[in-house]
Amino acid sequence: MTALKNDTFLRALAREPVEYTPVWMMRQAGRYLPEYRATRSQAGDFLSLCKNTELACEVTLQPLRRYALDAAILFSDILTIPDAMGLGLYFSEGEGPKFHKPITTEQDIEQLQVIETTRDLPYVLDAVRAIRRELNNTVPLIGFSGSPWTLATYMIEGGSTREFLKSKLWLYNKPELLHQLLEKLAHSVTDYLNSQIAAGAQVVQIFDTWGGVLSDSAYRDFSLHYMTKIISGLTREADGRRVPVILFTKGGGQWLESIAASGCDAAGLDWTTSIGNARARVGSHIALQGNMDPALLRASPARIEQEVAAILEDFGPGEGHVFNLGHGITPDIDPEHVKVFIDSVHKLSVRHHQRG
Amino acid sequence: MTALKNDTFLRALAREPVEYTPVWMMRQAGRYLPEYRATRSQAGDFLSLCKNTELACEVTLQPLRRYALDAAILFSDILTIPDAMGLGLYFSEGEGPKFHKPITTEQDIEQLQVIETTRDLPYVLDAVRAIRRELNNTVPLIGFSGSPWTLATYMIEGGSTREFLKSKLWLYNKPELLHQLLEKLAHSVTDYLNSQIAAGAQVVQIFDTWGGVLSDSAYRDFSLHYMTKIISGLTREADGRRVPVILFTKGGGQWLESIAASGCDAAGLDWTTSIGNARARVGSHIALQGNMDPALLRASPARIEQEVAAILEDFGPGEGHVFNLGHGITPDIDPEHVKVFIDSVHKLSVRHHQRG
Repeated sequence: MTALKNDTFLRALAREPVEYTPVWMMRQAGRYLPEYRATRSQAGDFLSLCKNTELACEVTLQPLRRYALDAAILFSDILTIPDAMGLGLYFSEGEGPKFHKPITTEQDIEQLQVIETTRDLPYVLDAVRAIRRELNNTVPLIGFSGSPWTLATYMIEGGSTREFLKSKLWLYNKPELLHQLLEKLAHSVTDYLNSQIAAGAQVVQIFDTWGGVLSDSAYRDFSLHYMTKIISGLTREADGRRVPVILFTKGGGQWLESIAASGCDAAGLDWTTSIGNARARVGSHIALQGNMDPALLRASPARIEQEVAAILEDFGPGEGHVFNLGHGITPDIDPEHVKVFIDSVHKLSVRHHQRG
Repeated sequence: MTALKNDTFLRALAREPVEYTPVWMMRQAGRYLPEYRATRSQAGDFLSLCKNTELACEVTLQPLRRYALDAAILFSDILTIPDAMGLGLYFSEGEGPKFHKPITTEQDIEQLQVIETTRDLPYVLDAVRAIRRELNNTVPLIGFSGSPWTLATYMIEGGSTREFLKSKLWLYNKPELLHQLLEKLAHSVTDYLNSQIAAGAQVVQIFDTWGGVLSDSAYRDFSLHYMTKIISGLTREADGRRVPVILFTKGGGQWLESIAASGCDAAGLDWTTSIGNARARVGSHIALQGNMDPALLRASPARIEQEVAAILEDFGPGEGHVFNLGHGITPDIDPEHVKVFIDSVHKLSVRHHQRG
């Protein structure tokens, strides 16, 4: 077991005592940073940046040079798996991710091959190894994947959507076909995350960005079921240490009890859920990660600090809290405001962890 | 007190015994109906249709001629109040509602006048009276308004938005200004709904379409607070009968206990909430309205019937359920599927109301 200089994040995920509440941000390596924009323009497009080991490693580390973050997260995209399956991922300016060959027929699904990460996505594993080397055991590295349901929506819709009409038509009219697709994705995600762990990821997070658009029962059957299956297939120890799994369903606040029963170590919360209420419901089983509204980073430094204090107060004294935003940071944010956010979490949380 | 031929909807809202579960649909007078599209093209644009008493009455009644609906809802727009305040509402093709003069400064808010419905929005009251006359006491008529927070987002953003960045910047950085705006809107909505009740509306619903994008505490302070205030100012009896209030916060499933404490008679649920779970939490205080995913109307008739059965089963036997969709019906729906939906609710719910 390699000693980490800062293992606060891992201890918080294990609900063990920490000196302060650790913090990282979803999309922390992102467009709000001028150095990120510079590296990205050097790489060309977004996907080329993901596939360039050296530059992907560079942008992963950029926010850690500016801020006292307690974790790094692999720089990659959630749609690498469908891309490796042959759907042809591309990014059109201002419209987000798209696929050249979306899934439209039963045959399309039958022909899809479960991915084998070492063969199909070596660039992701190269990035994990390079980042671990560069991090040099300062803070833990988070690997990640999209959830099967979230990946399926992009594969069926061909890109982003607001209404999920095609995916839902499959869900309601051809559930057995959608299950076939989700099954293949679940096997692929399991292999993908296990390969990231083997390459050096010390924590993994499953991003279920679109689970929250489902009905209660559809969420259980078409999203949570497959994430539970993935979790049961993951390597949970590496280098003599537990590898914690964080499950983040955006809009999943109503389903926390079910999420807590999935086998995950922590649940990510968006900002609509009271973290104090969430702790009362599931805090004796899992850790909680979140949950400041990312829009707050546009407010004044004093207001940001006030909100950090309110969320810490809502969680209350004791262990099991990883601070984060309730969703990814947006490109319009002033990097100075991020510094206020990170530093406030550290400064204001100390008293919540003092023992009597 | 005028006798209603069908008061099932009112009895369900009062959690009194009914013979079957009553049903209506949000946006039931809408583009999925060919006769609606014909009347609308006769009127010109959407706003002209709202302002034409005869045609607004006509489209309100159209779905009731096709389906055994248990309620009619006034045909109007949620943005009539800001329009009457002088913001200049218009509809641009494919982009939804917009304002010529959105709110951008403190002065804009100071200059806003609380509306006086009889003076500023007589066309809405004319429509209510005309519809009541035409309905001839067959089923109750629902009046409605947008919530102050929902109206404020459109007024500040100037139209629809996905991120609510401007509204949230006010909320977090200039809360006192936003409160000023919400206060004026709350007074206006109270007058607007009371005028609708005086003109003949027998039930009112507050549409808090965008409450669900707020954090837990912001929801309480900036949305629910004003809806509670409105409800306390409403006429609750007319024509010898209680006038029930339905509060619908889309995405509000986590906050049902607080919603139930607002003074409303019923809460509208979107499809992400289990209605059985909601009933266990608040069903002894209020009635529940909802909550089939509108995307299900695109599925097969057999699948629609199956989902109706599942929701009825989830609610369970007993009183206090008004069936509805979890959000408005979309323009792409086959009117025959709507018939299957409405008839299934009636047919399948009978056994849930039989007494031993």
